[in-house]
Amino acid sequence: MPRLRLAMAQTNPTVGDRLGNATTLLSMARLAYDQGAQVMLTGELALTGYPIEDLALRNNFLELSEQSLAAFASALERDGMGDMAVIIGHPAGPFHVNDSQTVPHHPARARNCASVLLHGKIQATYAKHHLPNYAVFDEFRTFIPGDQGLIIRLGDIDLGIVICEDLWRQDGPIESLTPYPLGALLVPNASPFERDKNTVREPLVTTRAREMNNTICYVNIVGGQDDLVFDGDSMIIDPKGQRIASGLRFREDLIVCDLDLPLAQSGAPLPANTQRVEISVREAGAQALENRPIVQTSELGTLWDALVTGTRDYVEKNGFPSALLGLSGGIDSAVCAAIASDAIGASRVYGVSMPSVHSSQHSLDDAAELANNIGLHHRVEPIANLVEPFDSQLGLSGLAAENVQARARGVLLMALSNSEGHLVLTTGNKSELAVGYSTIYGDSVGGFAPIKDVPKTLVWELALWRNEHAQDLGETPPIPISSIEKQPSAELRPGQTDQDSLPDYETLDNILDLLVVQGLDLPGIVARGFDQNLVAEILTLVSRAEWKRRQGAMGPRISSVAFGRDRRLPVTSKPTTFS
Amino acid sequence: MPRLRLAMAQTNPTVGDRLGNATTLLSMARLAYDQGAQVMLTGELALTGYPIEDLALRNNFLELSEQSLAAFASALERDGMGDMAVIIGHPAGPFHVNDSQTVPHHPARARNCASVLLHGKIQATYAKHHLPNYAVFDEFRTFIPGDQGLIIRLGDIDLGIVICEDLWRQDGPIESLTPYPLGALLVPNASPFERDKNTVREPLVTTRAREMNNTICYVNIVGGQDDLVFDGDSMIIDPKGQRIASGLRFREDLIVCDLDLPLAQSGAPLPANTQRVEISVREAGAQALENRPIVQTSELGTLWDALVTGTRDYVEKNGFPSALLGLSGGIDSAVCAAIASDAIGASRVYGVSMPSVHSSQHSLDDAAELANNIGLHHRVEPIANLVEPFDSQLGLSGLAAENVQARARGVLLMALSNSEGHLVLTTGNKSELAVGYSTIYGDSVGGFAPIKDVPKTLVWELALWRNEHAQDLGETPPIPISSIEKQPSAELRPGQTDQDSLPDYETLDNILDLLVVQGLDLPGIVARGFDQNLVAEILTLVSRAEWKRRQGAMGPRISSVAFGRDRRLPVTSKPTTFS
Repeated sequence: MPRLRLAMAQTNPTVGDRLGNATTLLSMARLAYDQGAQVMLTGELALTGYPIEDLALRNNFLELSEQSLAAFASALERDGMGDMAVIIGHPAGPFHVNDSQTVPHHPARARNCASVLLHGKIQATYAKHHLPNYAVFDEFRTFIPGDQGLIIRLGDIDLGIVICEDLWRQDGPIESLTPYPLGALLVPNASPFERDKNTVREPLVTTRAREMNNTICYVNIVGGQDDLVFDGDSMIIDPKGQRIASGLRFREDLIVCDLDLPLAQSGAPLPANTQRVEISVREAGAQALENRPIVQTSELGTLWDALVTGTRDYVEKNGFPSALLGLSGGIDSAVCAAIASDAIGASRVYGVSMPSVHSSQHSLDDAAELANNIGLHHRVEPIANLVEPFDSQLGLSGLAAENVQARARGVLLMALSNSEGHLVLTTGNKSELAVGYSTIYGDSVGGFAPIKDVPKTLVWELALWRNEHAQDLGETPPIPISSIEKQPSAELRPGQTDQDSLPDYETLDNILDLLVVQGLDLPGIVARGFDQNLVAEILTLVSRAEWKRRQGAMGPRISSVAFGRDRRLPVTSKPTTFS
Repeated sequence: MPRLRLAMAQTNPTVGDRLGNATTLLSMARLAYDQGAQVMLTGELALTGYPIEDLALRNNFLELSEQSLAAFASALERDGMGDMAVIIGHPAGPFHVNDSQTVPHHPARARNCASVLLHGKIQATYAKHHLPNYAVFDEFRTFIPGDQGLIIRLGDIDLGIVICEDLWRQDGPIESLTPYPLGALLVPNASPFERDKNTVREPLVTTRAREMNNTICYVNIVGGQDDLVFDGDSMIIDPKGQRIASGLRFREDLIVCDLDLPLAQSGAPLPANTQRVEISVREAGAQALENRPIVQTSELGTLWDALVTGTRDYVEKNGFPSALLGLSGGIDSAVCAAIASDAIGASRVYGVSMPSVHSSQHSLDDAAELANNIGLHHRVEPIANLVEPFDSQLGLSGLAAENVQARARGVLLMALSNSEGHLVLTTGNKSELAVGYSTIYGDSVGGFAPIKDVPKTLVWELALWRNEHAQDLGETPPIPISSIEKQPSAELRPGQTDQDSLPDYETLDNILDLLVVQGLDLPGIVARGFDQNLVAEILTLVSRAEWKRRQGAMGPRISSVAFGRDRRLPVTSKPTTFS
């Protein structure tokens, strides 16, 4: 069996930052080359980042991307790496579609491509065939599908290429390539993290490797891009379904591997609509490769890493020097502070306690303990003097007065942000956002929401996990026990607890999971044994809070259905029935 | 030539409100029946409203819609109208797609249908073939395409049916039906209003009528649904391309018409994949039909009607008793107040002047004059005492202090909304939103933004038009001349004008139109003769303000590219280039 030394570059691209992205890829190419790699494979759209959304509809964006691609190919050649094939993900276009002239606003679109670079030139290009247009994906909006398969004959090895969604579908390229005796299938991906994704992603790759009877080299990108978090976890799966190499999760990584692959069969009939391109690359290097241990992390640890990665990349990719958040003494702000500190270091995190006349001493104490445990900056700014003028001038009471407290805090945080340059983090959790248990323009202010997709019960679990993790490392547990154990309260009136207005969080989160994540509707949820009136009430709350969520900050998506581009529902909606 | 008495029901559905929508259709059916109509045609998804977005993915939503459809058919029969064919738009499903089991989150979808109801039963159903997935449309996400044509043989007349986008594309159903000698083509639509849409929509229908050599009966829905405004303007175009009947714009309407149509040719070969269903309906009524005059409105009058309709329907469909807005004395709030008053009546509109220490007397006077002209409720709430505690407690100055003023106003408006139940309207215009010239959580607070899609220069034009229109009607012009003529200023510091920070609005709006509406990029705009540095600066401002716009209120879309679902761009984005 011929041997191939293959590198997989698992990078953290920023959308549009072709300079930064290509520079990272060039550094990885250097490392790969120096380890004797013959081929280096990147993630999907690694040159431009993913998703590029409507940037794909802009001629200038596509032109500059093609120029960057050509420049990157030249740079590889210039730097003496021209004889290593680099297979890189990039957009190409524009391509005009039928009717794009006659149907208004039906613009030309791009193609989602992977090109083979060698000796400073593009040798061949594959365009993604299946364009996902569900969940968070809008590829049918911005891309047109490819219609040609590609096989690279690299010396005496045949390598197939498909991109991400192509691997998930049985029809199209996978169906065409399956009968062909490939050496390996190379798959660039931009596959966002979600809880339990590893229960579907690796099994899929394994199934395909077995069905196709070839090795699959699956490269994913990493990092946060707005609400999406990419977890890496690149993998090579052999035809028996064994994972033989792994990329790190949530971190950039270069995987270099020797693969013993079957000899290309020169007489094998080419699949329909498939091009075979012959290239010849350098000999594999003779140096020994390091063994890469496969690291296992706990489920909660993985979720934590996802939240930290999403938060870090939002801060860093948008150039914020620091982050600021309100510290109420409660569990949500404590967990957000810990995430932010893990993301960018406690020295860049600023906490503000903003006690009102209804705030308890234990809240102040818990916030101070948290700040002390973590080592973040902490100040106390009482709001009584800020709130009182509103109450007295407008004669407020009840809900209006409660909300003024939350909004005074919002104004205060934004004023500090404007003065000092911090990104404001908003600390609402998924359960609150679902039912609208928050004050818009109050506790919702901020550019990023670290636990937006974390239900309250999971917030507690993560807090406990983070504390245990600290203990395992011999560090101070960041989150005060009392913040974890006390009854949750917004403290907007005396003696208030969340359960005055909401069912217990375990019930609420179970119902919300069935509704939002599993996509069940009223009868489906009731059939799981929940009270019909309670379910109906929660559905109404969720529906009424849609307008608030539309105006909310983005935050890292860790579930399979987050609030945001996963779930597109009208604000104006009346679920009545004619009968 | 046989004659057909056809009714077109141009209704204003609310998404999900099958009861309200069907009740309106039943009343219209009554009127149509009483005028002797043989067939009544509705708009696209008239039963459920449009767009239903991800509601189309919910089994229960689809089941309840099918139940409502069946109940509506029965109600027609029960009320003695069973012998009039009613062709109604509705969703059907769920339909499972290839791979919906194996690809995670690739859900079953619906079909976008029009069904022929007669004698209490569904006689035939056509499913939309072309699913728009660009601009504001996401139909490929929620629907699967139909693959069968439908011809209704109604006595001796053949009627074809296609839905909305099908008419815009040359391939598919239009291509199949063109060679067939149809009597008329019936087209239910949900075609959103946009400026200049009438320069493409009627010409398209005219072209198709001529090409197909048949009459086209084009029914659109009307009304506001979140950010979309449907303008009606239903039409019947004869094979010569003449418009022979018109629905009102922006209002519900029933159009009843006698059409002399060619005799069905029994020997005509049926197009491929097309079903022909024979039905027999009542005789046409003998009563004379009223002549319907075709009403012409000016372009600015039409835009005004679109803004009023969008605002009215957001208020009414969401059940708000009243609307509240800040009145600065400036042109934006004046125009918003006039729109709101035209939408729901001045007695339901509440204006608040919130002068700061930097506010001029003329601003207060202009706001008072506006309120007086319109007859809306008006109060003055100075903010000095609300702002001062923030400034002194935090030691604020500069931008941070400016923003506290705007945010104190936001808190004040929201407090009044919480106390009194008003919907808060936010008064930002498209130019400001584009470049981020607004204070988030300050002047941006509110649930609806009436002039969100109106560039500043158009705000002035609309103000002048509205005043002239009042004069034409012998009424008091609502908007004070001084609000129109003075230099725009945020009045957040002494002597401030917008042009301290921005280019003149005419230049700005021209550049923004090229960028946002026409979709040009930097080189394309510079090629139109604008200064490269200025264009680059504006592009940077527009890009940096993306995070604010994501958290902004929705407002009526009147251009072909509004900020919102038309324009999906990342927040995190660095347009650098590797070279």
